[in-house]
Amino acid sequence: MRVYLDNNATTMIDPIVLNEMKPFNEEKYGNPNSLHAFASETHIPLKTAMQKIYAGLHAHKDDSVVITSCATESNNWVLKSIYFQYILTGQKNHIVLSSVEHPSIMATAKFMEAQGCRVTYLPVNNEGIVEASTLRDFLTPKTALVSIMWANNETGAIFPIEEMSQMCSEKGVLFHTDAVQAIGKIPIDLQSTPIDYLTLSGHKFHAPKGVGALYMRKGKELEPLFHGGAQMGGYRSGTLNVAGIVALGRAMELAIDSMDYELEDMRDIRDEFEDELLEIPDTFVVTPREKRTANTILISFRGIEGESMLWDLNRAGIGASTGSACASEDLESNSVMDMIDVDEDLAHTAIRFSLSRFTTKEELDYTLEVVKKAVERLRSISSSYSSKGV
Amino acid sequence: MRVYLDNNATTMIDPIVLNEMKPFNEEKYGNPNSLHAFASETHIPLKTAMQKIYAGLHAHKDDSVVITSCATESNNWVLKSIYFQYILTGQKNHIVLSSVEHPSIMATAKFMEAQGCRVTYLPVNNEGIVEASTLRDFLTPKTALVSIMWANNETGAIFPIEEMSQMCSEKGVLFHTDAVQAIGKIPIDLQSTPIDYLTLSGHKFHAPKGVGALYMRKGKELEPLFHGGAQMGGYRSGTLNVAGIVALGRAMELAIDSMDYELEDMRDIRDEFEDELLEIPDTFVVTPREKRTANTILISFRGIEGESMLWDLNRAGIGASTGSACASEDLESNSVMDMIDVDEDLAHTAIRFSLSRFTTKEELDYTLEVVKKAVERLRSISSSYSSKGV
Repeated sequence: MRVYLDNNATTMIDPIVLNEMKPFNEEKYGNPNSLHAFASETHIPLKTAMQKIYAGLHAHKDDSVVITSCATESNNWVLKSIYFQYILTGQKNHIVLSSVEHPSIMATAKFMEAQGCRVTYLPVNNEGIVEASTLRDFLTPKTALVSIMWANNETGAIFPIEEMSQMCSEKGVLFHTDAVQAIGKIPIDLQSTPIDYLTLSGHKFHAPKGVGALYMRKGKELEPLFHGGAQMGGYRSGTLNVAGIVALGRAMELAIDSMDYELEDMRDIRDEFEDELLEIPDTFVVTPREKRTANTILISFRGIEGESMLWDLNRAGIGASTGSACASEDLESNSVMDMIDVDEDLAHTAIRFSLSRFTTKEELDYTLEVVKKAVERLRSISSSYSSKGV
Repeated sequence: MRVYLDNNATTMIDPIVLNEMKPFNEEKYGNPNSLHAFASETHIPLKTAMQKIYAGLHAHKDDSVVITSCATESNNWVLKSIYFQYILTGQKNHIVLSSVEHPSIMATAKFMEAQGCRVTYLPVNNEGIVEASTLRDFLTPKTALVSIMWANNETGAIFPIEEMSQMCSEKGVLFHTDAVQAIGKIPIDLQSTPIDYLTLSGHKFHAPKGVGALYMRKGKELEPLFHGGAQMGGYRSGTLNVAGIVALGRAMELAIDSMDYELEDMRDIRDEFEDELLEIPDTFVVTPREKRTANTILISFRGIEGESMLWDLNRAGIGASTGSACASEDLESNSVMDMIDVDEDLAHTAIRFSLSRFTTKEELDYTLEVVKKAVERLRSISSSYSSKGV
């Protein structure tokens, strides 16, 4: 059996989405900017796809949704344009992040620090959540931007984005959210929430890799990261990835359509799986399940190195993770758990299971059996574990 | 009949390439950075693809070929990192371009000018070619970078990149070439040519849209444009576009394998088509065919607006262009021809036909008949044309 439980790292392309891309990978290959039928036959499908993305975000038609190649591009774009427009010009000198942002935010912020920008990293509480109240004290007249993810990739923890964006709006500070883990999992309404910039990534919700987007509120448009032929209203140049955009639109529509399923039925099988995992002795989950996206479990098995557990799971055909795929080659401890006041052993023993709408109850039952056997085997050879605890 | 003669704007995906991508769009969807079989099963295909790209460029294994989302990204990356590393730090203050670079170079250079960088634009001669001798006078100790395209997208004109890169190497100036129109059309050997940076784009040689690359010579590596999870050796973060990379590798291999065909057989049918077009009275081609890529014809039909000709061609199912797709929505005169000492009428009447290895003799014969009829019709209603010339 092959079981994929690493959907926060990437997802399979929905076969419906793949089918929608097909004509644009085959006979409809024109460059949309050309002046002939090979181009014009892409215009309505592109427009339709863009409308689906606007609808999925409840974005106003005067706002800009700009297609990018990935969330890393969108995140770099926001921070670097803030640098050029506000920091380099001397108007502002400060940005605020959470201490558990994705590496594409963290590494870009480090680059900005090297260029003289001051960066504040907000802590998380012992549930792995950034509290809105911690933000207020750090907003100064010199703060150019606050960037906080909507849901954490490792724990699934949902952050109070409505409240924090409102706070920034009142103080005249620009607000960005990396919503990569939120699409299709958290209802988003950009007409009622004063978010200025929002990042999303297609391959996290069953579109292909290589396509993402950045939402920009009207009047808050950023200097482009890609200058050039003025595609995407001049905000992001480069030949339009037609198949990718069509796929992104369809995937967004499907994500919204299946949100009820994810928030109820998927949550049910996730909760049941989690209950059964927690029956294994000496297991530990940081973020309460009602404060998490419905697809994610980050669980520690005391005494078992995360990588050892992954290895046993993998031999049984199961793909899971110790945390962010973007950092997992490092084989370090889970970064969110490092930020929380848990002992080091728990951070090193965390495993993330992330489901999708394609995950079945049968797959989870099978996984549970494999996990139980792995726990038994690995604890029996663990130097740090005894049945009485560490 | 549907005839696609706009291959300098974009190309169809080679069915062989599409087939090679298929498993990675379907069952092999893992994130290569994860720690399980869904990831590891992508590693050998990725490595194989990268080897094909290195081989196609004759790049040394210690150099870096970094996958990007498109040529616009690669070009922005080079110029902006030069800005951060050399201009912002005050070490250098000057870059040199040709006056006919792609918009992704031109617009980025304008942005750098706004940040205080000095930019020199080298002229082209009356054949549309940048002469190496014009470069020498502009290289100063404050010159950080020279960026010259290898072949022009509008005329197909091939620029003396070996000579210019050698000149820069001797003067200690970094050299970049946008080789988007050169892959599979001009033999490239980065071990014998002292090019520091080279841009390529998949969709110009039968790979999909949304994938390109930047070559960087060892020791000349640039600060990333995308900071983050440290994929691609830390030079370009973002989840790897597995299907796109596999496609790019296979497309590169096919481009190299078919170069003999393009340089001989395709050139033959192009030349024959061009000879027949030139038999139409009052036609004009700028760049001599032996100084052009084998697939391109930029031809002016005196008295006929380029857009009018495109319209007649399009009604007959033929896709061609007036110049760069990245600028063609502007409906302006051909930008290369504007730079050359030709009268304005010729610049406004230029049509570009760009072939691929999939173009057939039958398609060109059909196109010739359509062009002849269009010329007759359009000149009969032209206010600026009489059979005795303008």
